[in-house]
Amino acid sequence: MKNLDEGPERGADVENNNQGGENQSETCHNRSPLLSDPWKPYERPRAIVKDWLLKLRCCFGAVCGMEWYGYAALGILTAFLSFLMDFSVLKLLNAHQWLYEKLDGNRLLQFFCWTLYPVCLCVFGSVFSHNICPFATGSGIPEVRTILAGFEMPHFLSVTHLFTKFLGLICTLAAGSTVFLGKVGPFVHLSTMVGAYVSNLCTLIQPNKKDNATREMLVVAAGVGVASCFGAPVSGVLFSVEVMSSHFALRQYVPCFFSAACGALTFRLFSFWSGEGETLQALFKTNFPSSLPFYPLEILLFALLGLLCGAVSCCYLFCHRRILQFINTNSVLVKMLATDKGLYAGAVAFFLACVTFPHFAGRYMASKCTMKQLLTSLLKGGQWISQSHNASVQLEPDPLLEWNSSESPLFFTLTFFLLMKLWMLVLACTLPVPAGYFMPVFVYGAALGRLVGEGAAFLFSSTSINPGGYALAVWILCLVSAAAYSGAVTHTLSPALLAIEATGQFSHAVPALFATLMANAVARSRHRPSFYDALTICKKLPHLPSLKKACPWLPSTPVGQVLGVKSVRLQKAAGPAEVRHAVNSSTETQIPVVDSHESQVLLGFVLRSELLMFLHDSEAENPEKHLDEVCSIHPNLVLLSPHNTIQEAYSILSLFGAQTLFVTDEGRLVGLITWPEVRSSGK
Amino acid sequence: MKNLDEGPERGADVENNNQGGENQSETCHNRSPLLSDPWKPYERPRAIVKDWLLKLRCCFGAVCGMEWYGYAALGILTAFLSFLMDFSVLKLLNAHQWLYEKLDGNRLLQFFCWTLYPVCLCVFGSVFSHNICPFATGSGIPEVRTILAGFEMPHFLSVTHLFTKFLGLICTLAAGSTVFLGKVGPFVHLSTMVGAYVSNLCTLIQPNKKDNATREMLVVAAGVGVASCFGAPVSGVLFSVEVMSSHFALRQYVPCFFSAACGALTFRLFSFWSGEGETLQALFKTNFPSSLPFYPLEILLFALLGLLCGAVSCCYLFCHRRILQFINTNSVLVKMLATDKGLYAGAVAFFLACVTFPHFAGRYMASKCTMKQLLTSLLKGGQWISQSHNASVQLEPDPLLEWNSSESPLFFTLTFFLLMKLWMLVLACTLPVPAGYFMPVFVYGAALGRLVGEGAAFLFSSTSINPGGYALAVWILCLVSAAAYSGAVTHTLSPALLAIEATGQFSHAVPALFATLMANAVARSRHRPSFYDALTICKKLPHLPSLKKACPWLPSTPVGQVLGVKSVRLQKAAGPAEVRHAVNSSTETQIPVVDSHESQVLLGFVLRSELLMFLHDSEAENPEKHLDEVCSIHPNLVLLSPHNTIQEAYSILSLFGAQTLFVTDEGRLVGLITWPEVRSSGK
Repeated sequence: MKNLDEGPERGADVENNNQGGENQSETCHNRSPLLSDPWKPYERPRAIVKDWLLKLRCCFGAVCGMEWYGYAALGILTAFLSFLMDFSVLKLLNAHQWLYEKLDGNRLLQFFCWTLYPVCLCVFGSVFSHNICPFATGSGIPEVRTILAGFEMPHFLSVTHLFTKFLGLICTLAAGSTVFLGKVGPFVHLSTMVGAYVSNLCTLIQPNKKDNATREMLVVAAGVGVASCFGAPVSGVLFSVEVMSSHFALRQYVPCFFSAACGALTFRLFSFWSGEGETLQALFKTNFPSSLPFYPLEILLFALLGLLCGAVSCCYLFCHRRILQFINTNSVLVKMLATDKGLYAGAVAFFLACVTFPHFAGRYMASKCTMKQLLTSLLKGGQWISQSHNASVQLEPDPLLEWNSSESPLFFTLTFFLLMKLWMLVLACTLPVPAGYFMPVFVYGAALGRLVGEGAAFLFSSTSINPGGYALAVWILCLVSAAAYSGAVTHTLSPALLAIEATGQFSHAVPALFATLMANAVARSRHRPSFYDALTICKKLPHLPSLKKACPWLPSTPVGQVLGVKSVRLQKAAGPAEVRHAVNSSTETQIPVVDSHESQVLLGFVLRSELLMFLHDSEAENPEKHLDEVCSIHPNLVLLSPHNTIQEAYSILSLFGAQTLFVTDEGRLVGLITWPEVRSSGK
Repeated sequence: MKNLDEGPERGADVENNNQGGENQSETCHNRSPLLSDPWKPYERPRAIVKDWLLKLRCCFGAVCGMEWYGYAALGILTAFLSFLMDFSVLKLLNAHQWLYEKLDGNRLLQFFCWTLYPVCLCVFGSVFSHNICPFATGSGIPEVRTILAGFEMPHFLSVTHLFTKFLGLICTLAAGSTVFLGKVGPFVHLSTMVGAYVSNLCTLIQPNKKDNATREMLVVAAGVGVASCFGAPVSGVLFSVEVMSSHFALRQYVPCFFSAACGALTFRLFSFWSGEGETLQALFKTNFPSSLPFYPLEILLFALLGLLCGAVSCCYLFCHRRILQFINTNSVLVKMLATDKGLYAGAVAFFLACVTFPHFAGRYMASKCTMKQLLTSLLKGGQWISQSHNASVQLEPDPLLEWNSSESPLFFTLTFFLLMKLWMLVLACTLPVPAGYFMPVFVYGAALGRLVGEGAAFLFSSTSINPGGYALAVWILCLVSAAAYSGAVTHTLSPALLAIEATGQFSHAVPALFATLMANAVARSRHRPSFYDALTICKKLPHLPSLKKACPWLPSTPVGQVLGVKSVRLQKAAGPAEVRHAVNSSTETQIPVVDSHESQVLLGFVLRSELLMFLHDSEAENPEKHLDEVCSIHPNLVLLSPHNTIQEAYSILSLFGAQTLFVTDEGRLVGLITWPEVRSSGK
């Protein structure tokens, strides 16, 4: 797939070489014809089209740099993908629901319909992604943030991967609330892949761009993913920043927000045009006036709720880490997941579907609702207990009835939902399909808040603590709890903002922020890893902030202690024999050159490609030449000392986007630090 | 002042030395007695108090690290200062208004009251701050961001400076809308000073803390400043991040938001307790339902408004740069500002007060309103034209009457306000008093939006583009324009969020963000410096992102080109004579040591203090010793090559918080890069 990606760039280079003979329009300073090759037919029309395209490029280029169109295109494409996915998933979910309701009366057929539909989807998603692109399973966030830290993983950004993940994710989401998985994580990964593709297109149009343009585009793309998922530009970008990077360069701030705003706007416009929303409104509508007050004492309640959310999140994360460990060590499962991913996915999905079957335990946990219905019903304004009396007069089926009916009273349903979904979600996280884990956690948090809120309203209904009624208080508790719980699981603060942005109510920013801070304080204590950290550690990716959770002493370890065996080095006056030995015994692209093997004073490095050229030349012509007479010795930009900590080495590797750093002591070469070195030091 | 700051630390060291003989409680791992000294009276009670304090510290320390209490204290202190300032300013403004209204009927006395009150305040503020702490004038943001980038400026964080700036700022704000200046910038500076003080306190309580704790506290403090000003935690932190830093480390994210949330909560609680607001509401109350729609086509209108704001901001920034240049070059003004700041401040304030006198031009520019009244009236919901008919029946004086009365029609007032305030604000920015420049710009933007909105509503009143009526459209245009204009002047995006957070309406995030992006695109084009960049360049502070605006080639210049004269270096075997020469001819704290003067291979550096000790020893006892036998040679952590760019050197200096970097080529020392080097390269 890498070849396909590289294709356009190489094509552009060929074009550049052909360019000399053609007539150049004076308006463009730099140009690479979009199509040439004189042997192709229709030379004249092609020339006209090319001319027009060039003029168009000049016009566009006069307004702003080509990368800005790239950012806009990235936002729009991602939002389009997001809309397309929502649309397909909605159709598939509706089909399932229609079939299930048609079979009303025949419980056995209903059971098969209820279980086999998600099982088929999960098996297809798992087998398809396993066969086309085996890396496509899971959330993708751990890999993306490793890429953003500077580590090169080209297979993770290919177009094949994009389509695999897209289709696989549709299958997962269409399996509905049975498997209870979301779309945020894979969408960040999808938008990163779109970003890599758009960046290649930009290179084709404007070859002489900056070196780090691709990396900047990837950072922006990671920010756009969440924004397009929810149509929430501000919190989307902040969430990405928090999850993705340990350092955020401010020059990427404006492109990120620009692209995210384009994405969010496109997402809402599509919803508007498709007739889903009459106007561009907040995604999860709430029917509350905005400037409602809260009282100082309630802050304490929010802080307590935050602590509760933090404690529950610790429990969830502990279970998640344990099951990851179990799956990676149990020999049966390891063998099964290596060869028969489909079988495992089918088995787990069937089990989950059996549990959620509405005529079985499902009726006590509102399993008929889709993820979106669950969230909107939980975040619905008002107190449920008071609403339940007149709920039966409504004509259309109300999700509230699922929660609070005569056979399943409210408190029982909520408690049962929370207890069951905890282990079901942990189990679902092991499914080898593309899936996101943020949305289920957010819904779980909202349910937790609803339980606490309704409980408090029920207990304190005699003494009035808020004259505005409990309705608002319960709603705020839901919102705050959803933010706090998802913030605690991911170790971020931006879910607070996300909850506010998605519901359009800014007055509750302070309580949500407070509760999220409290929940984070509990979840982060004692170096507990976040959800994504656990995945990173499990996958052994070279991401220092995650590895730090597993070995807290690591960042302050001196570099000198982790330098491996003595690395290959060449002396300035090396002959062909020494060079051949070095090339054969090392796989690095940069090989250090020292003054002499005695002094070991580092002069710089030579590129592997130049060494191969040198060997080729020396075989052909003059075998007596020395290294420094043929190859150019590049100066090292930054040198570390063995006393630097690994944290510092990691920062510099990330800052410069370099893959190798040289370590010297008193001018003498001591060793190299590379990304795998950083990773292996964590073992 | 530095001595006063250093006092507690030195005290703590002394305590540590005394500690050995005392009985240590086993519960505490590390302790520094809060009070000791055996010669003081009441030994027994003091011992009991000390014991209790130590136990208390252990209890607190068991919950979380001492720095978190510091962050909370920082937020609460800053919010308290903010509230105290608002309270004093309100009293002073009310006194002025009361006096002015008592003198009704006598125009001459009214004129003197109107002009002399702000003149006295400005002269006092200017003379006071000039005499106590000459750096206290201006906004302080350029200095704070230079400090945060790593440059040491201890005088800017002293407690004297804090009080000077606090008092001076009260004077400036109490001068009211006559001088039309705000409090955001100085407040960021104030909170940084509070942060430095709290950090010293934390050092006293917990001496064995991390090296960079002070710097982290300063970053957090900068974030808290804006949050406490508006009671808006999210956008406050983001604004600080955007203005202050070029890189933002994510580990400061949580402390920043924690402190800002504490600050915002305290600020609102104080407002609540003082009876200003009945409950904790958004700062500038708006009476609109939240989930009001906007139509896709309106996005275009917002984009156009953003472009207009960008263009006006360019004009304003151009005038501002010109007047800064004029003031720095005109010999009369330079002399006057060096010696008679009070005279200049008085003259400018008198001139501005004359222009805004309500019986003169002031009646056409709503000069009777305070800054807050101006903003709330501009951001008031509804269309003014339609409201003006029944405005006269209200009992209390309505700021709207100031804008739209029979003798000054709406459009004339708004246009006159915009034209006059443009140059008046530029003039006011030259006042040598502590003052902020964000709020006036925000108000100006709101007025611009109001003019455009009312104009559009007037023109299109026949064809309905929004069935919801123009009232909302006009209000959104105001909000969006305020955000876009202030964003363009400061080159930031967070005013969009600030406008939304302060009014509590999140539904309009996307239009505000879009308009701000457009305005930024115009304002940032052609390397135009922002408001703060212009100040930084004018004050010649070593802040690379600002200097880049003045010389765009600078960041990509190789370090080798700006290395100055050959720096002082010592050889390993240097004797007392050579060391004495080096100490006398250099002022650096780190002096590089090379292998020998022939090879020039860098071994490390010695500290100046150790060299002085070496000289002292050699004079006293054995004059034949060599440098490496007495002093320890510290290894250099990071070495640069002459091929590194200045941008890279700046990043590494900021990342490591270092003051000096050594540059080597093939192991040989070439020179040093220090902060002043980075600054001087921009000349």
